[in-house]
Amino acid sequence: MNVSVLKKLEKILGDRLSTSQSVLEQHGQDESYHTPYPPEAVAFVHSTKEVCEIVKICALHKIPIIPFGTGTSLEGHVAALHGGISIDLSQMNEVVEVNAADLDCRVQAGVTRQQLNHHLRNTGLFFPVDPGADASLGGMTATRASGTNAVRYGTMRENVLGLTLVLADGQIIHTGRRSRKSASGYDLTHLFCGSEGTLGIITEVQLRLYGIPDAISAAICSFPNLEAAVDTVIPIIQLGIPVARIELLDEVLMDAVNQYSNLDYPVQPTLFFEFHGTAQSVAEQAQMAGEIAAEHGGSGFSWTAQQEERNQLWQARHNAYYAAIALQPGTRGWPTDVCVPISRLSECILETKKDIETVGLRIPILGHVGDGNFHLIFNVPSESNTSLEQAKWVNHRMVMRALDMGGTCTGEHGIGYGKLQYMKKEHGNAISVMATIKQALDPNNLMNPGKVLPTDIYHAD
Amino acid sequence: MNVSVLKKLEKILGDRLSTSQSVLEQHGQDESYHTPYPPEAVAFVHSTKEVCEIVKICALHKIPIIPFGTGTSLEGHVAALHGGISIDLSQMNEVVEVNAADLDCRVQAGVTRQQLNHHLRNTGLFFPVDPGADASLGGMTATRASGTNAVRYGTMRENVLGLTLVLADGQIIHTGRRSRKSASGYDLTHLFCGSEGTLGIITEVQLRLYGIPDAISAAICSFPNLEAAVDTVIPIIQLGIPVARIELLDEVLMDAVNQYSNLDYPVQPTLFFEFHGTAQSVAEQAQMAGEIAAEHGGSGFSWTAQQEERNQLWQARHNAYYAAIALQPGTRGWPTDVCVPISRLSECILETKKDIETVGLRIPILGHVGDGNFHLIFNVPSESNTSLEQAKWVNHRMVMRALDMGGTCTGEHGIGYGKLQYMKKEHGNAISVMATIKQALDPNNLMNPGKVLPTDIYHAD
Repeated sequence: MNVSVLKKLEKILGDRLSTSQSVLEQHGQDESYHTPYPPEAVAFVHSTKEVCEIVKICALHKIPIIPFGTGTSLEGHVAALHGGISIDLSQMNEVVEVNAADLDCRVQAGVTRQQLNHHLRNTGLFFPVDPGADASLGGMTATRASGTNAVRYGTMRENVLGLTLVLADGQIIHTGRRSRKSASGYDLTHLFCGSEGTLGIITEVQLRLYGIPDAISAAICSFPNLEAAVDTVIPIIQLGIPVARIELLDEVLMDAVNQYSNLDYPVQPTLFFEFHGTAQSVAEQAQMAGEIAAEHGGSGFSWTAQQEERNQLWQARHNAYYAAIALQPGTRGWPTDVCVPISRLSECILETKKDIETVGLRIPILGHVGDGNFHLIFNVPSESNTSLEQAKWVNHRMVMRALDMGGTCTGEHGIGYGKLQYMKKEHGNAISVMATIKQALDPNNLMNPGKVLPTDIYHAD
Repeated sequence: MNVSVLKKLEKILGDRLSTSQSVLEQHGQDESYHTPYPPEAVAFVHSTKEVCEIVKICALHKIPIIPFGTGTSLEGHVAALHGGISIDLSQMNEVVEVNAADLDCRVQAGVTRQQLNHHLRNTGLFFPVDPGADASLGGMTATRASGTNAVRYGTMRENVLGLTLVLADGQIIHTGRRSRKSASGYDLTHLFCGSEGTLGIITEVQLRLYGIPDAISAAICSFPNLEAAVDTVIPIIQLGIPVARIELLDEVLMDAVNQYSNLDYPVQPTLFFEFHGTAQSVAEQAQMAGEIAAEHGGSGFSWTAQQEERNQLWQARHNAYYAAIALQPGTRGWPTDVCVPISRLSECILETKKDIETVGLRIPILGHVGDGNFHLIFNVPSESNTSLEQAKWVNHRMVMRALDMGGTCTGEHGIGYGKLQYMKKEHGNAISVMATIKQALDPNNLMNPGKVLPTDIYHAD
């Protein structure tokens, strides 16, 4: 990037434009194991208008633009593969408005989900989507995030009502309306939700909110094997029991959790449940789920509506990711995810488990099983290159298996540049339509280039 | 259209290509009052491959293509504004597969919602979206339809999982996967859902299904005035009572229903409720709703879970549209709709009611009020041009009011060519992004030209 461009940007941003090595490095890497690519500069923006001005300069000088929220993505989404400027939206962190009567709110893209829920604490409302990390809501929108309670409340796809965006030419647009539904015009909100910054930069998000349920109950239950646990989930979903969370931890992960938190859960595949509703309804839901679990050999099903006991029951689940990483001290986690039709979930998990056993690694399985979505948590870099290669082999076979089952290569992490190679198999020639849209909206390929669309489908300049 | 083109089409379709006057007329008009425009030929297609072959011929000869399902659209969607061929998909009426375990199914575009539910009758499953008419599922997808129980189950937007489409160049693509969620690639399913045939022709739809609830209860309740009725809805939604339907009929419509069906309901604004769940849960829901209604002056709230009594209670609602048209014998209905944030619903309805009183017409109001969505049912052609002009005035003011309140010019009917004039006000410069996408996917503007995008934004050749 030449000096005159930096000067122009500095004129807008002052000392909120950074080229310090540590800032660049921090912005070129997310929480994945993928090779980091630092940007050439980082712009800490304060407004949609600033983003617009920066994009116009970048458009003029053909400089790539990579949006950055909290850096908690998992497939290399923030890597500056072709150089350029990282636009850090974390200081755009204002909750613009909360409309309690309409159960919606508008936030700047840098507001995190925990910040929003803290802001809502006296309203009786909450925002349910919870991917684990305290990610920014702009980033969660851009990656179509979901998490533990998507089974009840949906993913970002179901909860984003509208967006403010800056397009590749610097144009600012607003998508969506405040009404609950609309049959007017093309659904641009959904087109941009999950586009990972490749079609435009999200600067504000209109979100759906929910009333905090009168009662919440939690339950856990151990199973003799994985199949029995997954087979418990299927009738619960089919019967329409409106379970709020239903999470699977396999025996490897339960063992890790016991070690990590000094607990003594049975080292068996375990389901964690949460039920939301009236006191009467959560009791009924827990009873129904408990009966189904018992029919499948589940043991020790116990539930409680007391907050302290609930927290205790769910403690194992909350610590699961850190417990998994602690299995191999000094490594970082590489969580990968697929999602399949629920009828194939058991088969997909069991076949994957066989592959894990084949390579002899100790890889925990964690699933948002109500959605047919599960994760493996690899540890990398591991003690040897061999085990990284083995992890890649397991991952590749799992993704191909999910695709063959009618599933997707990623239920909630997104493509970034880590899963590009699966796009053609997953989407067939629909990928050419994606490329046509990208070409139309970003003809110079400056918006997060090298992500979502494989380069042989869509070439960088 | 020249004879050689017709010959080419006939070679594919045989006697399933029609140019008979009555068939052409039938295909140029939907259930709206908008001026009909018959196509030059109608192709009764049997497969995606046939649609592909026809589109390729049309692309070569620059002939417009207008998809046709059941002709029950309401804003002139099927009108052949620029001539061309109507592609009638009603004979593509096969339910391709039902995956009971995964709560989804795949249908050809011509399958109607009642046909699907009949097909599902022994599975314990149902498809909930119910726009009133027995529309085709392809048409419902293309217009992003919804209806009475969208408040619980969502609209087509929430229930379409994937599509098979024929694009303007004849390419066949599949969008979406069978997994419940995915973070992979641009959300083309949602882009095409609601695009009204202007970006491609939907030939198959993957749909979400639901278990038939254990128990269904129904209730009705009269209110002293419209405000009290709407103010009852707001806390019910805010408290998260998972009401399956909540419908408002104003006193004009209740009077019409009484006359039409020889009933004797109080001639007052009335709410119709339906609750789905377990026996215990529907009883609890009905009780909570009843208490809220009573707080707002609702009287005569009575509920029942018995099917026969439920049907009786809802009879008035089921006959409402025909009762409204019967207010002026010899006319046809012109239902129009808007949708606003629920906090503005009362104000929007009351202001609209004032306009109706100003012009002195007798226009019933019918609302899917849980979504903030309501309809006026005009009668046209009326006894005089004056009253048509008055109806247009009321409609225009209602739409502008809804837009000013952050709502949409149509909650569920779509744009067709009847609401083109409101697109710019509703979408601002986001409409230029819609035009860019249209241009990229249909550069010759052959796919249902003249719909969705105003011609000054997007010109026909």
